[in-house]
Amino acid sequence: MASDSLLKLEPDFAKSGGLVPAVVQDAVTGEILMLAYMNQESYHLTLTTREVHYWSRSRRELWHKGDTSGHVQKVIELYLDCDLDAVVVKIEQVGGIACHTGRRSCFYHRLAGDGLFEILD
Amino acid sequence: MASDSLLKLEPDFAKSGGLVPAVVQDAVTGEILMLAYMNQESYHLTLTTREVHYWSRSRRELWHKGDTSGHVQKVIELYLDCDLDAVVVKIEQVGGIACHTGRRSCFYHRLAGDGLFEILD
Repeated sequence: MASDSLLKLEPDFAKSGGLVPAVVQDAVTGEILMLAYMNQESYHLTLTTREVHYWSRSRRELWHKGDTSGHVQKVIELYLDCDLDAVVVKIEQVGGIACHTGRRSCFYHRLAGDGLFEILD
Repeated sequence: MASDSLLKLEPDFAKSGGLVPAVVQDAVTGEILMLAYMNQESYHLTLTTREVHYWSRSRRELWHKGDTSGHVQKVIELYLDCDLDAVVVKIEQVGGIACHTGRRSCFYHRLAGDGLFEILD
């Protein structure tokens, strides 16, 4: 399924003002759990520690997900897209909760029609 | 699974300079196919036409995905995240090809270790 040569790649941080969106997906169920941003430092820490690190845009600081709660995200697989400006990380979510609201996924507002959304528990 | 009241919501476009990232996921397989951006107009067109529209940052224009190729993305479900600054759309990908490289998914660079990536065909 893969070509036999490997490429040294990293996200094109310069293109997007230093940050690229990272989509985090449960490696087993395929459920999308959250989207946050990585700068170059958090991306490299994600690769070297095998735990997901972000750049918090609101707090303007490096964010090791789960550092406080223990709900770290263990990297299972990592992908870059065609133009190297987005990341997908398939993870194991320790504790089963990715969202700060206590939900499994941050994507709990589901369109029910006409701009109206239902809240998934 | 859902609370019985519906909320009128839309992405917080003001927060992110007018654009929010939209993650597109195959509604059947759960595979993440691409990530692109929506402004308010493309978001509303996505809801009203039930076909995914983006804002092309490179061409600086409204982008009805599949308009040229016929590979439109039919909306099956749509989600907003906890802080309303990211969208997930579960879709049916007409033609089976989301990426401009001719691949099913844009996320075809898979980390093989030490910053090296393999290319999935």
